[in-house]
Amino acid sequence: MDHYLLLFLLLAAALSSASSRIILRILPGAGVPSEDYLYCDSWRLSVETNNAGFWDTIPARCVGFVDLYMNGDRYDSDSQVVAADAISFARSLRLAGGGVNAWIFDVDETLLSNLPYYKGVGFGSEIFNETAFDEWVDLAQAPALPASLKLYKDLQQLGFSLILLTGRSEAQRNSTEKNLLFAGYRNWERLILREASDIGKSAVIYKSEKRAQFEAQGFRIYGNSGDQWSDLLGAPVAKRSFKLPNPMYYIL
Amino acid sequence: MDHYLLLFLLLAAALSSASSRIILRILPGAGVPSEDYLYCDSWRLSVETNNAGFWDTIPARCVGFVDLYMNGDRYDSDSQVVAADAISFARSLRLAGGGVNAWIFDVDETLLSNLPYYKGVGFGSEIFNETAFDEWVDLAQAPALPASLKLYKDLQQLGFSLILLTGRSEAQRNSTEKNLLFAGYRNWERLILREASDIGKSAVIYKSEKRAQFEAQGFRIYGNSGDQWSDLLGAPVAKRSFKLPNPMYYIL
Repeated sequence: MDHYLLLFLLLAAALSSASSRIILRILPGAGVPSEDYLYCDSWRLSVETNNAGFWDTIPARCVGFVDLYMNGDRYDSDSQVVAADAISFARSLRLAGGGVNAWIFDVDETLLSNLPYYKGVGFGSEIFNETAFDEWVDLAQAPALPASLKLYKDLQQLGFSLILLTGRSEAQRNSTEKNLLFAGYRNWERLILREASDIGKSAVIYKSEKRAQFEAQGFRIYGNSGDQWSDLLGAPVAKRSFKLPNPMYYIL
Repeated sequence: MDHYLLLFLLLAAALSSASSRIILRILPGAGVPSEDYLYCDSWRLSVETNNAGFWDTIPARCVGFVDLYMNGDRYDSDSQVVAADAISFARSLRLAGGGVNAWIFDVDETLLSNLPYYKGVGFGSEIFNETAFDEWVDLAQAPALPASLKLYKDLQQLGFSLILLTGRSEAQRNSTEKNLLFAGYRNWERLILREASDIGKSAVIYKSEKRAQFEAQGFRIYGNSGDQWSDLLGAPVAKRSFKLPNPMYYIL
């Protein structure tokens, strides 16, 4: 059947359905069976709310779903709405001067998208391969998440000091800076990576310690944007935390 | 066009689409335009992750979406997956004896579903009407959330003491007990409602104070199930918290 005939049939079916309150959705991408789509969408919600707790790989039945989610329009839409929540909060604040007003950003899946890498490893269905991922990091070619790049610039315009706090190691500072510049990020206040003394700490501990240090240095941490709960939980917390979507991996 | 012809067209379209990797979804319910569906689904995620912060009514454009979500199979599926996360955590524990192992449940939209009430007020698109809601509470006819009722029974079987902690007031104790029994709940350890001294406290403060009291009484709070972030946040927290879905209202 050619595509014109298909389109005609879809149109005819859609028109006929208006009165019977049935709607048709045409989704591009992998052919995910309905029951998998329903389950995987609920699984994704349980991941995004941290209900699922620790997990190491995405469920095998959800590979097609995650492909569809990441490469269709849902990931972009979800990212846009988180960014809108963040900027709306930022604009509601009455800020003191002096550069003490801070906003923290995580890097991977927050400022930068590693989707080109994760496409090659089944969208998180394979066990994390540190060597292969480090090679990808060294390429320094991860694109920006468009919604985050806009939020980053808008926050700078409002006068926030932007602190980038990543689980990447100091050994990756050069490639990380290069990649951030490649993706369009400029003029961050700090880029904090794991030093030797941070290796082995959980992300929650490492990032909470760093937030405590920033506060001790006089920063007021208004916002914190990250795709992992371990970016956001632990004392001290930011005044508001913003959980970006990431159905591909979980970091403790 | 009659329904047989519609079905034929859908089938023909679906078959024709297999090779071009387009999938058709037929969703029952209100005819939500695609761009609203996409936006409202992202709005819902921002609510469930607490990114949205406080909100008083659902967006006007999302009434049809929330109807579809609550009355289609998604709400049930999301509720089932949260319950599965909870019971899987509970089964992983090595519990001490003596009835000190506690699990906290919120009541509204956690054990009981007020969907029959919210259907009549636009699924949360109208400002909360306390008088009308209290009349509904007095009817004591809210059904159980099926996934929560099963979780409740399974946790009892494992030996947990179940503490029900609700923002409802002591004046509603009788109707709340009656409703819980009507819905199939039995043998809770405690049912805690707001006393006079709790009126005016935010839910986070009121519920955190109660959790602190339970701990002082010797309970170990392993799990906490609630549809509001104000059920779950604040010190002390349970070892694991489980956020049930609720796109209809937000309680501070």
